[in-house]
Amino acid sequence: MRIDRKRLAQSIDELGKIGETPRGGLTRVALTDDDRRGRDLMVRWMREAGLRVTVDQMGNIFGERVGAERLPPVMIGSHIDSVPTGGKYDGQLGVLCGLETIRALDQHRVRTRHPVTLAIFTNEEGARFQPAMIASGVMAGKIPLEDAYNARDKDGLRLVDELERIGYLGAEPCVPRPFRAYLELHIEQGPVLEEEGFAVGIVDGIVAISWSRLTLHGVQDHAGPTPMRIRHDALVAAADVVAGVRSIARELGGDVVTTVGNLTVQPNIVNAIPGTVTLSIDMRDPRSETLDTARERLDATVKDACAREGVRYELEHYWRVPYTPFAPDVVAAIERAAAATGARHRHILSGAGHDAQYMAAIGPAGMIFVPSRDGRSHCEEEFTPMDDIEHGATTLFLAAVDLAGRV
Amino acid sequence: MRIDRKRLAQSIDELGKIGETPRGGLTRVALTDDDRRGRDLMVRWMREAGLRVTVDQMGNIFGERVGAERLPPVMIGSHIDSVPTGGKYDGQLGVLCGLETIRALDQHRVRTRHPVTLAIFTNEEGARFQPAMIASGVMAGKIPLEDAYNARDKDGLRLVDELERIGYLGAEPCVPRPFRAYLELHIEQGPVLEEEGFAVGIVDGIVAISWSRLTLHGVQDHAGPTPMRIRHDALVAAADVVAGVRSIARELGGDVVTTVGNLTVQPNIVNAIPGTVTLSIDMRDPRSETLDTARERLDATVKDACAREGVRYELEHYWRVPYTPFAPDVVAAIERAAAATGARHRHILSGAGHDAQYMAAIGPAGMIFVPSRDGRSHCEEEFTPMDDIEHGATTLFLAAVDLAGRV
Repeated sequence: MRIDRKRLAQSIDELGKIGETPRGGLTRVALTDDDRRGRDLMVRWMREAGLRVTVDQMGNIFGERVGAERLPPVMIGSHIDSVPTGGKYDGQLGVLCGLETIRALDQHRVRTRHPVTLAIFTNEEGARFQPAMIASGVMAGKIPLEDAYNARDKDGLRLVDELERIGYLGAEPCVPRPFRAYLELHIEQGPVLEEEGFAVGIVDGIVAISWSRLTLHGVQDHAGPTPMRIRHDALVAAADVVAGVRSIARELGGDVVTTVGNLTVQPNIVNAIPGTVTLSIDMRDPRSETLDTARERLDATVKDACAREGVRYELEHYWRVPYTPFAPDVVAAIERAAAATGARHRHILSGAGHDAQYMAAIGPAGMIFVPSRDGRSHCEEEFTPMDDIEHGATTLFLAAVDLAGRV
Repeated sequence: MRIDRKRLAQSIDELGKIGETPRGGLTRVALTDDDRRGRDLMVRWMREAGLRVTVDQMGNIFGERVGAERLPPVMIGSHIDSVPTGGKYDGQLGVLCGLETIRALDQHRVRTRHPVTLAIFTNEEGARFQPAMIASGVMAGKIPLEDAYNARDKDGLRLVDELERIGYLGAEPCVPRPFRAYLELHIEQGPVLEEEGFAVGIVDGIVAISWSRLTLHGVQDHAGPTPMRIRHDALVAAADVVAGVRSIARELGGDVVTTVGNLTVQPNIVNAIPGTVTLSIDMRDPRSETLDTARERLDATVKDACAREGVRYELEHYWRVPYTPFAPDVVAAIERAAAATGARHRHILSGAGHDAQYMAAIGPAGMIFVPSRDGRSHCEEEFTPMDDIEHGATTLFLAAVDLAGRV
């Protein structure tokens, strides 16, 4: 049994038109009008496939294909929101491979003991509302619903108001629900599978992630008549921190990655010495102890940089997730499925957070990776060859049948 | 003869309320509604003082007090726009000391041979529309009117449309006009006068200024699964440039100042490696040759930083003004006036550009500085003691009488 490659490719094309950028990427930020249009299309397809569709309090969408018995479902999930000027594979590929799994089950007249449920999670990217994966976080009981509702975007709009505005503030409680297994197919977003010629990655776990926020308070002043000797330039200190954050990864080596992705300057005009700079620090490693060391080095880096320039600062380590191992039986089912497709496959770790991370906290979860060309993602150039997608989707389909139990 | 300190203080208070920030600073950005309200108040006061008020094609406001003879006026000018979260002294102090000069001329029943004209220039700060001093630049024939009209703010609004919207798109041609002398009182915006205990600075000239714009093109990617070894991070290169720009000033020493005031990151989210960064470089020195050297070093700094990180760049040196010496006879008149007030005074250079710079290109110009507390400006903490303001304003008044010729 295989999935229908042509049907899957058509769905990818069609959903990819909603929020498409001129250069062929995707801007479909969470809870925007394009997100609503994407959701509407998915709900239509899910209903056409005979699924019973419900929406929960966080706008998560579930579509259930009944099983032969009243058992917890095999849940297949991902997201359809994107980062700004992102690509057409991150998130929506997982959702569409899940939909294709449902369609293939129907086509091959497969009846399963467990129901199979397709899940679409709200605001996975965290590009608009922070933290990322906020809706699976609420579902896993890790983020209070109230906090999620009050998350604000940069214009001050609340998540709950935007959910309501686009018509996806559902009634179903967003609480942990039992499942036989949670499966998520996703692009690797790194170079490993492509470099080594693998079509499918069997994900053993997700690296530990630490997010910090730094605010630097310098002395805003005129760029002309203020002599260098009396300056306290928040951006000079920030630049020192950016270089220091890069050094942390270089010095620790191994798999650790460190990134300053967000940096804003006040007042941000040519002829004023920056008074305030805020910036983010993202650090990841498979080992929690490495992140502990990285955080210590970050504390020292910031302290030294600010002392050198004479600026005050606040450094807040506001989010941290430990290493998330996936469930051995789910990983084993994925491995059997990958082997059955005949595709070259290998075990791999995920460097990015995914909704599967929170799902792993409340039930057995696993992930399937497909290659990213040049390791690139969160950009318009994001691309995965259709051959690999077909292998990945078939792996997902076969693993779902395996875990749901064919009757 | 002296100016009326109490009347001047009241005017500063009253105009300072328009666009006042909660912390006592000023946000009255060019061609906003607050700028319009500030202009309306000034025009009312100018008319109440008997001036004939006209508005030119760039929204510059002129109010003429007639002279005994039909001769070119002594023009006293400055601006009432501010940077965002700026202070209540930069710009509006010069305009209000000019108004006080007119009022004091009336009060002391002084008749002058030359008319005395008060001028308020549009968008001096360049915080909203670039370049700075755009309207005096047009008047001096240095910036084409068409270019100025098409300058756009960050929201894409055109200067000419905003001029029209606030009702200050005048009919008078914005072209060089003859004047006996141009006088501008301004805060020093540096620490020299205060540190050395002077009330009045007699400005000999304005330093040479160079503005450059750098765009860095890295490779936008996901901050998690992208190994450090394949990254091309535009912000890491930008940080290297910010540090390098600071080094240029440290290495060249003397009076040179270098600043990165504006820096923006794309896509600017926590979990994406920055793909594009744009930043500004502002460099100033009294000697043009020093700026030549600084530019060469900047070119090398940028080239090296981008080579290290493997990012492409465009570096554009888009604005440069040479050292502007003021007219010896105007400087001498200011010095006589300062001496007559009994205030401690010294000669000084201006590190900031002012409308006086463009006026100096079309006629004899000079400037008067008053101290800035802690050398600070372009911030809410901007402050000049009223004792110093009184000395400065009286210097302006006496210099205007001297140059306009009492009859």
